[in-house]
Amino acid sequence: MIVTNEIINDFLQTRQTTEEICAPLTQEDYVAQSANFVSPPKWHLGNTTWFFEEFVLKKFDENYTEYNPQYSNIFKSDYQNLSKTGRGNLTRPSIEEVYTYRDHVTNYLSEFLDDYLTEEVAELVMLGIHYEKRHQELLFTDIKYILGTNPLFPVFSETFEENKIEKQKSKWIKTPKGIYEIGHATKDFCFDNELGKHKVYLHNYKIKNKLITNEEYLEFINDGGYSNFDFWHAEGWEWIKKNQIEAPLYWHKIDGEWHQYTFKGLKKLHLQAPVAHVSYYEAFAYAEWRGLRLPTEFEWETAQDYFDWGKRWEWTASAYLPYPKYKKNQGSLKERTGKFMVNQKVLRGGSVVTSKSLTRYTYRNFLHPHSRWQFTGIRLAK
Amino acid sequence: MIVTNEIINDFLQTRQTTEEICAPLTQEDYVAQSANFVSPPKWHLGNTTWFFEEFVLKKFDENYTEYNPQYSNIFKSDYQNLSKTGRGNLTRPSIEEVYTYRDHVTNYLSEFLDDYLTEEVAELVMLGIHYEKRHQELLFTDIKYILGTNPLFPVFSETFEENKIEKQKSKWIKTPKGIYEIGHATKDFCFDNELGKHKVYLHNYKIKNKLITNEEYLEFINDGGYSNFDFWHAEGWEWIKKNQIEAPLYWHKIDGEWHQYTFKGLKKLHLQAPVAHVSYYEAFAYAEWRGLRLPTEFEWETAQDYFDWGKRWEWTASAYLPYPKYKKNQGSLKERTGKFMVNQKVLRGGSVVTSKSLTRYTYRNFLHPHSRWQFTGIRLAK
Amino acid sequence: MIVTNEIINDFLQTRQTTEEICAPLTQEDYVAQSANFVSPPKWHLGNTTWFFEEFVLKKFDENYTEYNPQYSNIFKSDYQNLSKTGRGNLTRPSIEEVYTYRDHVTNYLSEFLDDYLTEEVAELVMLGIHYEKRHQELLFTDIKYILGTNPLFPVFSETFEENKIEKQKSKWIKTPKGIYEIGHATKDFCFDNELGKHKVYLHNYKIKNKLITNEEYLEFINDGGYSNFDFWHAEGWEWIKKNQIEAPLYWHKIDGEWHQYTFKGLKKLHLQAPVAHVSYYEAFAYAEWRGLRLPTEFEWETAQDYFDWGKRWEWTASAYLPYPKYKKNQGSLKERTGKFMVNQKVLRGGSVVTSKSLTRYTYRNFLHPHSRWQFTGIRLAK
Amino acid sequence: MIVTNEIINDFLQTRQTTEEICAPLTQEDYVAQSANFVSPPKWHLGNTTWFFEEFVLKKFDENYTEYNPQYSNIFKSDYQNLSKTGRGNLTRPSIEEVYTYRDHVTNYLSEFLDDYLTEEVAELVMLGIHYEKRHQELLFTDIKYILGTNPLFPVFSETFEENKIEKQKSKWIKTPKGIYEIGHATKDFCFDNELGKHKVYLHNYKIKNKLITNEEYLEFINDGGYSNFDFWHAEGWEWIKKNQIEAPLYWHKIDGEWHQYTFKGLKKLHLQAPVAHVSYYEAFAYAEWRGLRLPTEFEWETAQDYFDWGKRWEWTASAYLPYPKYKKNQGSLKERTGKFMVNQKVLRGGSVVTSKSLTRYTYRNFLHPHSRWQFTGIRLAK
Repeated sequence: MIVTNEIINDFLQTRQTTEEICAPLTQEDYVAQSANFVSPPKWHLGNTTWFFEEFVLKKFDENYTEYNPQYSNIFKSDYQNLSKTGRGNLTRPSIEEVYTYRDHVTNYLSEFLDDYLTEEVAELVMLGIHYEKRHQELLFTDIKYILGTNPLFPVFSETFEENKIEKQKSKWIKTPKGIYEIGHATKDFCFDNELGKHKVYLHNYKIKNKLITNEEYLEFINDGGYSNFDFWHAEGWEWIKKNQIEAPLYWHKIDGEWHQYTFKGLKKLHLQAPVAHVSYYEAFAYAEWRGLRLPTEFEWETAQDYFDWGKRWEWTASAYLPYPKYKKNQGSLKERTGKFMVNQKVLRGGSVVTSKSLTRYTYRNFLHPHSRWQFTGIRLAK
Repeated sequence: MIVTNEIINDFLQTRQTTEEICAPLTQEDYVAQSANFVSPPKWHLGNTTWFFEEFVLKKFDENYTEYNPQYSNIFKSDYQNLSKTGRGNLTRPSIEEVYTYRDHVTNYLSEFLDDYLTEEVAELVMLGIHYEKRHQELLFTDIKYILGTNPLFPVFSETFEENKIEKQKSKWIKTPKGIYEIGHATKDFCFDNELGKHKVYLHNYKIKNKLITNEEYLEFINDGGYSNFDFWHAEGWEWIKKNQIEAPLYWHKIDGEWHQYTFKGLKKLHLQAPVAHVSYYEAFAYAEWRGLRLPTEFEWETAQDYFDWGKRWEWTASAYLPYPKYKKNQGSLKERTGKFMVNQKVLRGGSVVTSKSLTRYTYRNFLHPHSRWQFTGIRLAK
Repeated sequence: MIVTNEIINDFLQTRQTTEEICAPLTQEDYVAQSANFVSPPKWHLGNTTWFFEEFVLKKFDENYTEYNPQYSNIFKSDYQNLSKTGRGNLTRPSIEEVYTYRDHVTNYLSEFLDDYLTEEVAELVMLGIHYEKRHQELLFTDIKYILGTNPLFPVFSETFEENKIEKQKSKWIKTPKGIYEIGHATKDFCFDNELGKHKVYLHNYKIKNKLITNEEYLEFINDGGYSNFDFWHAEGWEWIKKNQIEAPLYWHKIDGEWHQYTFKGLKKLHLQAPVAHVSYYEAFAYAEWRGLRLPTEFEWETAQDYFDWGKRWEWTASAYLPYPKYKKNQGSLKERTGKFMVNQKVLRGGSVVTSKSLTRYTYRNFLHPHSRWQFTGIRLAK
Repeated sequence: MIVTNEIINDFLQTRQTTEEICAPLTQEDYVAQSANFVSPPKWHLGNTTWFFEEFVLKKFDENYTEYNPQYSNIFKSDYQNLSKTGRGNLTRPSIEEVYTYRDHVTNYLSEFLDDYLTEEVAELVMLGIHYEKRHQELLFTDIKYILGTNPLFPVFSETFEENKIEKQKSKWIKTPKGIYEIGHATKDFCFDNELGKHKVYLHNYKIKNKLITNEEYLEFINDGGYSNFDFWHAEGWEWIKKNQIEAPLYWHKIDGEWHQYTFKGLKKLHLQAPVAHVSYYEAFAYAEWRGLRLPTEFEWETAQDYFDWGKRWEWTASAYLPYPKYKKNQGSLKERTGKFMVNQKVLRGGSVVTSKSLTRYTYRNFLHPHSRWQFTGIRLAK
């Protein structure tokens, strides 16, 4: 059963939140692309608008006229072209024009939904809403990368606290061996890679109720963790040597003291905060150094009720693979999570910049092992 | 309990087999390195000798004098340096000298074992024997690559038949859902990544008793399989486009007709033979085109009794990850399979060039998704 | 003898011209870096300001306080680091702040000059003025690249005419063999690479009074010029094949008809205009196809009085090398043109976007053979 | 007038010399390609044979049947494909087969010349002879590279002395300004890039009668020459930093003492010998450090009578460009030196491994600025 008001409210709320995230940006911040894995904020605003125009308005509203036929070329997702090169020259259309485009689609769609909300449309709009919520997180992390690689280390927000501390005492959560059920099973929205509730067999294991802190990670650094081949995957070792990596992303040693770039600008390293911006290679090496290991995504999902998760995306030992009952989306949309199910690792939990609508315990995030610009952290198991 | 004679026989037999594989080579064939993932046959001969000298003779035989102190530098395995660049200039020592070195170590070690075979030594020698057997397979595939990229397509052996046909009728093997046991559990030798027999839960599945043939794969090609983005992982698509890949490795279309380079030279494509030399990306795309999927390594291991496996390494859907009870080898040797447990896929079964001692149903081979120079093939599941 | 007023006027005029060039830019245009050989307009504005602050105010004005100590890090020229990567994230300081910085330095320096203009200071200020004038040209060409690679092909200026036509009848200018004098010899400003008037011996030669037009270049394309190895340097051939180059930069074939992106937007190809945005490789291949050649820089300088030059930078056959009497600048500044005297070709003349103060017949511009984003054209000799 | 006997003798002598150079090689040495700028000795033997078969026998001898149609594919020069990748897998044909091929063509051609030597054929054969002589030098330098990058540092020849010392006292040769004539003008053989005797104007200059020695170069190293940006071209600096270059090729610091790999194996650095295996970047930086410069090729040619040249290829300041009267070879052969006249520097003189027939004072060798595997040295001018 479709509840029109709820969907429209959710849609309008999502559109507004996206724009609120961007509020502290200067006009120029919207256009930079300081790494090829980063998209300019302007592009995120356009792409999430193109989604609703392309898959809802153009398909279901006979009276709708495309706002600007060239925008599709600029703002579409392009799965066939992995490189995002070329998004860095989108100085035009201006950010005002992009906001006008957004408003146009937002208004048009909310009116359209008011009159013609079918099951099919509702499903697409819900997908679009969650698609946009994922881009809200990317906005945060892309903005952090753009500002955080600027030698001026500009402040994004004086109030946004990314270093939320876990105050509970560290302890091991024990789970007995047996069959457990994994996957999404409610009527609530989820992405296709979470679907197909299914059984897995788990062995006895223990998992920490708490993330690794900056202080703990610092011990690894001070103990020569980045110089000891024994702790690293062969490819991880090659990666840290080639890129001269000796600390998490955004860490800077200034006059002998460690600092970290945060949304509040450059600050002294917050020792009690959970470590962030480490790659899977680093998370694995840290666990090796401790003589422990990372949990699988199934162990995580089974024990998650005992954690206060949601501060960092937590690297798991699991590769990103389809669940046993995985079905490719066959709709016109073909939002294809399966396209990426190779050479990536699963992360669970969600971070301080993840939309609350996406922080469910079945959500499967995925990244390449060397990725660091998300708020990625470490939880240990044994 | 150590049976000295058996080990010595196995050792001597292994040393001899390695040299028999190389018998058809010309002196020059021993030295070429025609791709950075290939090692020259001469290096394989030296490296498998260095292993026994380094980890057994130098460690356990007080009277042993290193044959040539420079050889360690040339022939050692180097896990810290993934690139094999530089093996292509080993024109010296000559192949005669390398064989003399081999004979020296073979003879010295067999005499030593006769007198001083302890448990610890036996374990290392068994590891060395299996290490060398793995290199026997690499010798075959590296030789095929060296000769197969030579425009003259020279014959390696008039008698070696790599295209063994599966004559059974194709059918689906059904396995009911439930808990199954996975992993190596006998006293026989195995590598550390197979250890730790453990339970997994499998859902109902069906798996083919037969590999995909060249004829079947050709239909995929003729149906435009390499031109349809829908069948491919995003990274697979990028890989085939960048490398202009339109058929398995060693396939050549000459005057409109498909040929394949084999150890017997360039031959017309053998339609009934199982397809070989496909990447994981291609195996996955083929399965997608068929509306089916690749089996997991656990499904494979559970059903393998119904196959006549051993002709092709079979790509599985599983990522190469540690088993739940995996323990890193802590010995002086530190042969570390765990170093490679990221970004690789598991292959099961074994191929026409795999040593019989390695073709056990628990053996876990692993390769990067783009690798093709091994005899890799496709089995489907659903 | 220093004429204070003239220098101050020239300085103020130059500062103003730079800003007038940027007048049509939107705030976002200032920040994009769409290729690593392009600098964002904002950076040009800052760098030309940093120059005066660093080399004049900080050195000669004891009372001067650096405007912002961090700006030096952001805006300095960095000859040791050829890569300009990292200029694409300068969303801060804002363009308003950069203009404030500019105004501050402009005002401070003009007042300072009024009071304390010594010979040494005058020389440095003159160098800074000409340095900024070179950046005026880069502003034009970088802006054209940023806008011209945007799929929207935005208009920069409705009035700026880059396609100035040469109306004279094409004819050969003959110069008899003999000794000619080359190089800058007046008291006017020049860069150090033009200095040292000196003799060269020239053989009889003929040179065209007119540049190659788009129409003439189109014949080369239509005759298969980009497909015939005979016309190309081996490195040029490799370059066009690797980069799939089949026409000058900014040319687009749309529905069978050639267009070119100009400051006025995308237009049909102007057949009578001189060809622009060709690499040296293309200029050379065109000349080969015609059975002619490019002139040397000495032939050009000797005959230039017969041309109406100044529309395109003209590729010469000459490599960029020091003149016989070349002396490295030994001052504190060390603006070192000699650092670049390898692997580059000399261009002569100047283009529609070159400052008039730089369009003197002794000026030696230099670019790598593959460069195309400047307004580069072709004049033939034999 | 053609003197048949002389040509045949020269031809036979050249063929023999090539084979004598290879005499110390082991069978495996013939096949290695340890860098992409190196060709395996076997390929040189085949390529110089292919030349005579392709351009003389197949064109002028109606009765000649191609020895093996596949050899053309393997042994041809390929100007369109700059990369030499793929020559490293030529384990077949065997070196015996290649020598049989050589003998076949040598014998066939010498008999053919005896009967049918026309002017046209004589010219092609002379070109082939000199082409082969150039490959004789490449054989030496490619062999040195193959053996010299082998960690065993094998001896190539106990007698070949590459470190010939210049005993004359160092002094400046003065040349007065004026017009000088440059280029080849006798009836003797030369390559097309030397042709067209022509005038150049030279200014007063001085040039050393002696090459820079290892001892002198060592002072540059010890004075921090590789760490001071001031001495280097911007591209040279980038090159030494990226490749971690801190000394000439083949220099090794062992236990604090400098050694050099020579044809006689690894030896202590010969201080009095002229420095070898430096790039143009290093030669230029050395000259800068001395406050001097490299000579132009014209200065070199004019003063060369005062040197005892022929020990090292001497980097000149000149770019490799066509002479004023340069004509592309229009024959069927199209041996095209002009194809390479971009981004390379001229070297003059000849080295200890250059054929005497090529060591004439008009000969123009050319290399990229970073090349070091030839015997390249330094002479200074001012």
